[in-house]
Amino acid sequence: MNRVFVQGTAPRLPTVGIIGGGQLALMLARAASQLGLRARVIDPSPDCPARREVADFCEGRPESSVALHSFAADADVITLENEFIDASLLAALEAEGREVWPSSRTMALVQDKLVQKQTLRNAAVPVVDFVAVGEHASVQDIASQIGLPFVLKKRCLGYDGTGNFTVHRAEDWSAAMEKLGGHGSGLYAERWCPFERELAVIVTRSKIGNHALYPVVETRQRDHVCEHVIAPAIVADSIANQTKLLARQAIEAIDGVGSFGVEFFLLNDGTVLVNEIAPRVHNSGHYTIEACDCSQFENHIRAVRGLPLGSTELRAPAAMVNLLGKTTATGAPRGIADALAASGAHIHLYGKLHAARGRKMGHVTALGSTVEDALATAQRAADCIHFDQPLLT
Amino acid sequence: MNRVFVQGTAPRLPTVGIIGGGQLALMLARAASQLGLRARVIDPSPDCPARREVADFCEGRPESSVALHSFAADADVITLENEFIDASLLAALEAEGREVWPSSRTMALVQDKLVQKQTLRNAAVPVVDFVAVGEHASVQDIASQIGLPFVLKKRCLGYDGTGNFTVHRAEDWSAAMEKLGGHGSGLYAERWCPFERELAVIVTRSKIGNHALYPVVETRQRDHVCEHVIAPAIVADSIANQTKLLARQAIEAIDGVGSFGVEFFLLNDGTVLVNEIAPRVHNSGHYTIEACDCSQFENHIRAVRGLPLGSTELRAPAAMVNLLGKTTATGAPRGIADALAASGAHIHLYGKLHAARGRKMGHVTALGSTVEDALATAQRAADCIHFDQPLLT
Repeated sequence: MNRVFVQGTAPRLPTVGIIGGGQLALMLARAASQLGLRARVIDPSPDCPARREVADFCEGRPESSVALHSFAADADVITLENEFIDASLLAALEAEGREVWPSSRTMALVQDKLVQKQTLRNAAVPVVDFVAVGEHASVQDIASQIGLPFVLKKRCLGYDGTGNFTVHRAEDWSAAMEKLGGHGSGLYAERWCPFERELAVIVTRSKIGNHALYPVVETRQRDHVCEHVIAPAIVADSIANQTKLLARQAIEAIDGVGSFGVEFFLLNDGTVLVNEIAPRVHNSGHYTIEACDCSQFENHIRAVRGLPLGSTELRAPAAMVNLLGKTTATGAPRGIADALAASGAHIHLYGKLHAARGRKMGHVTALGSTVEDALATAQRAADCIHFDQPLLT
Repeated sequence: MNRVFVQGTAPRLPTVGIIGGGQLALMLARAASQLGLRARVIDPSPDCPARREVADFCEGRPESSVALHSFAADADVITLENEFIDASLLAALEAEGREVWPSSRTMALVQDKLVQKQTLRNAAVPVVDFVAVGEHASVQDIASQIGLPFVLKKRCLGYDGTGNFTVHRAEDWSAAMEKLGGHGSGLYAERWCPFERELAVIVTRSKIGNHALYPVVETRQRDHVCEHVIAPAIVADSIANQTKLLARQAIEAIDGVGSFGVEFFLLNDGTVLVNEIAPRVHNSGHYTIEACDCSQFENHIRAVRGLPLGSTELRAPAAMVNLLGKTTATGAPRGIADALAASGAHIHLYGKLHAARGRKMGHVTALGSTVEDALATAQRAADCIHFDQPLLT
């Protein structure tokens, strides 16, 4: 912790550089600060959520090598809040002797989802059947391997369903190509997987190799966006144990360092498959701020600093409800007073200046005697809050 | 919440201005940010703890009217993290239509401790006997009213015992005058009060008049600096109830808005006297971050924004141990890894660049099945941490 603290005669705080300035960076920066560290953030937008909570902000595109290197200077460790920075840029930082977690190698294994699936399959971690989609692939070629319907997906840069298209028949192909940007954007296909529920686990793995597993939670989506999370998921112990085992194996397969969200499909027959890995703190782990001794954010900072990991035990059943924009509007919430009056709800607002349909504007966490009880409390508060004040033009 | 959010066509976040940039401002800013607000801080030091967590920092002396007015511009509400800003400066802001909480009137009733005692006595809130010390007062005059020994105190600007001197006999007078700066600095005297224990209560009172009372805690001092706090204090219900009643009456007597620390003496016969009021969030309430649903910091922000107050119920017995500097050194801590390995301890480091004897560098909070258990956990972690790395010169 103290290696670089004193330089010359001017003391300075150890600095954690965070690539990306969204709400995940905001919550990471808060955790770093509580541990006496300085957070530095790079993001192209001076209005990004993390901006108002960090003194040390670099306005710039992380994809710009100049901006990234200027940001990385003096940072004692570099980490990220999204999976969109190209692994080769991280490798360039490592080549200069910078410490980057997750490493460029981990990111290269994760950010291309086809490579991610191959890596998991090679490590004997069960995933949905998939095939690479070559330049000349046709619906028939793909269907012959994984059946119809199948889900065509972008290999890189998809999130919240933006990079997916379900192909039911040959005639869907041109619409799929149009939505996904054609073969040129890099595609793969997955077998249609009718799951019963979606589960998730946050895994934190330290750079010195130990790990911490948070409880198995259930995530519930609408239109591919997470609406709410209940912790723990109501599943048999055998399923919870299997899910945790796979989560740990998945993160070991990519040699991950930091907190990771591992998403799962639970099938009707009790089979658990890894859906995908998010190489960063994850929406499904926001409940850990109030519900666990040590949040996914604090454990991430501990992990990338090589510090002992904190307890992931659940204090009480918990639920987290996302506050999603419903339309284009200002980011000014209505109904906060009513929401705060809902006792027991912890309201987090990200301070975004604009709302849009499906945009994550904040979240609400509640604890309770049961997950249903916690969910009811959180939902009651969340239902009060609306982002619907029109932009003046 | 949304009155000023949209101005013209450029949305902006409501801004909470905080006078002072110490660790209390840091924790207030974090709470404001979580509620979707923007924190602005004024402090003369660019190395102050709050600096690294706020984008909107005004480097300047709040006592400078120019700096203060520039800071106050555009702030939707102004509050403070220490009692040292002169009430007349706050009154000038109010005269310009700025919203300031606690109000200049409250601050005028609190920051001069002689006026504070008079105000409490007038409101029938029991305090230690005291007398004003006029320019020509002598030990004999004072002793004739409140006996010997007595404690000579500065009316303004004292903290952690820096403004106190215990006078045992007439010969102590010149040393007392020397330490306290003479009559010119404004003095009063208090009867020597051999108390059994010190108690404290955080009271939050909203600008719309409702209030929230946190549990009665015991604070333990060494050399006038708080070493640790246990929550709840182990006292009879009748004493706890009396203490809470007095805390509420004390804050009503000064028409306080925001979170306040009210400190008490518990005498051997069970009598409870108000020692003093801190017109701000208080060290004795740091435990509320982990131990209560809504911390003293979040409730302060809610109070000054006119939002409903959150629950102050204790989740579990808790203890808070201050991390105090022992000598002049860098602010770089040693032993953090060992401290973090002490499971269940929540470590807060304020990121100060320099340590000094008695300086508050951070704190540790733990919950437990009993306060003794919680204190043992927190103390075990705190004992690992040392601020003793020499400054290079």
